[in-house]
Amino acid sequence: MRNIYVIGMGSGDPDQLTLQAVKAMRRVDVFFLLDKGEEKADLLRLRHEILAEHAGDRPYRLVEARDPDRDRDRGAGTAAYTEAVEDWRSRRADVYERMITDELPEDGTGAFLVWGDPALYDSTLGILEEILQRGRVAFDHEVIPGISSVSALLARHRTGLNRVARPVQFTTGRRLAQGWPEGVDDLVVMLDAQQAYRHHLGEDPVIHWGAYVGTPDEILVSGRLSEVADRISELRAEARERKGWIMDTYLLRRG
Amino acid sequence: MRNIYVIGMGSGDPDQLTLQAVKAMRRVDVFFLLDKGEEKADLLRLRHEILAEHAGDRPYRLVEARDPDRDRDRGAGTAAYTEAVEDWRSRRADVYERMITDELPEDGTGAFLVWGDPALYDSTLGILEEILQRGRVAFDHEVIPGISSVSALLARHRTGLNRVARPVQFTTGRRLAQGWPEGVDDLVVMLDAQQAYRHHLGEDPVIHWGAYVGTPDEILVSGRLSEVADRISELRAEARERKGWIMDTYLLRRG
Repeated sequence: MRNIYVIGMGSGDPDQLTLQAVKAMRRVDVFFLLDKGEEKADLLRLRHEILAEHAGDRPYRLVEARDPDRDRDRGAGTAAYTEAVEDWRSRRADVYERMITDELPEDGTGAFLVWGDPALYDSTLGILEEILQRGRVAFDHEVIPGISSVSALLARHRTGLNRVARPVQFTTGRRLAQGWPEGVDDLVVMLDAQQAYRHHLGEDPVIHWGAYVGTPDEILVSGRLSEVADRISELRAEARERKGWIMDTYLLRRG
Repeated sequence: MRNIYVIGMGSGDPDQLTLQAVKAMRRVDVFFLLDKGEEKADLLRLRHEILAEHAGDRPYRLVEARDPDRDRDRGAGTAAYTEAVEDWRSRRADVYERMITDELPEDGTGAFLVWGDPALYDSTLGILEEILQRGRVAFDHEVIPGISSVSALLARHRTGLNRVARPVQFTTGRRLAQGWPEGVDDLVVMLDAQQAYRHHLGEDPVIHWGAYVGTPDEILVSGRLSEVADRISELRAEARERKGWIMDTYLLRRG
């Protein structure tokens, strides 16, 4: 039976790897690497450094494929967005399925390396599930949890996710732009390409923001949103211009 | 200046330690250990094993204190509960402050070891903040993120936290017993001593439940809530009876 690890690598600091991740990497015959295009010379280099340091002395192979492009024009409404993402996921499943079938021996151990935690706003687990449901190739798979970008962000800001006995919601920039969710005062915002925090200056929450957390490019800003929003927008624009991409996350805490 | 690490140790599997946590432990002069009473011979033993393996050859000291008892009778309403927790936190801050002042040299490095991730439903960061605000002892502190019980749970169930473009809420058993929150179909439930999932059998979400995740006692159950709720309740009661304590978490996914 083929065996596949889905390994969380942490959010960009190679020391965020767990001992479990390191041990799993040492057992891998074939690493499947996806060139996401949007992924970014720095992250590719970091992934290679991590492999060079931890994949061990055992021989292993790298199998690289081009990640299919996503139709980013279908993004206006939530339904269209979800459909675009699901269509993209199926095309990725085609690529992943081919790699597993063609490149991983029947008794081999493969691995997908995921930044952060595979559970958090990552599609790898959904793609593997889709391949298993198709039923054309069988494999066992195991998930190695990783330090998420959210845990890394909160650690750098030395703050907790939740307040005592209070709920917290994880949501997307797209949703936050439509309104502050009901029933929660604490929000973690992921995938915000549109600076949705700017829609909530009136409520003036505290924001704990970070970009490239855990890497040498890390930028952190904390404060009342009304006082720091412009600074975050500037830093974001500058960094994006300079590096060509940005990966940022934030916590909003109201009242 | 005193330096204090708050180190996330992962949810109970010693291999969930990060390289960063291991490196930090090797720099520590004084580990502050709290005997929580409710904490549990197994966890104390595991913590000692982790220290013995990773704290390194450098001499270090263990300083142990008894964690103050919490007034668990004041738990009926949310306001009373929050007040009880805050009062408890202040009494813990007294203990922590005394340990830091009396036991950590002015140029020393101390550490608090936290199960899971210090950001997630843990009080250590809030306590250190309270001590700093009192202003009687100064220290720098750094947080080392850990694999949370939630990441560990989701990894074992090989499922993601969120569905595509959808929000997720982290909440408590106490709150879930009062009603399913507005605007979300995916819930992570922490600190549920009262089996609040039983209030939502009618909505029949899928549940991914786990106890002692990552440890040799791990128990996992997944399925439609209507089909597995009784089994979870039985397993929970049995395990609690056998071990004297339980630590469990779950994801509910509706619709």
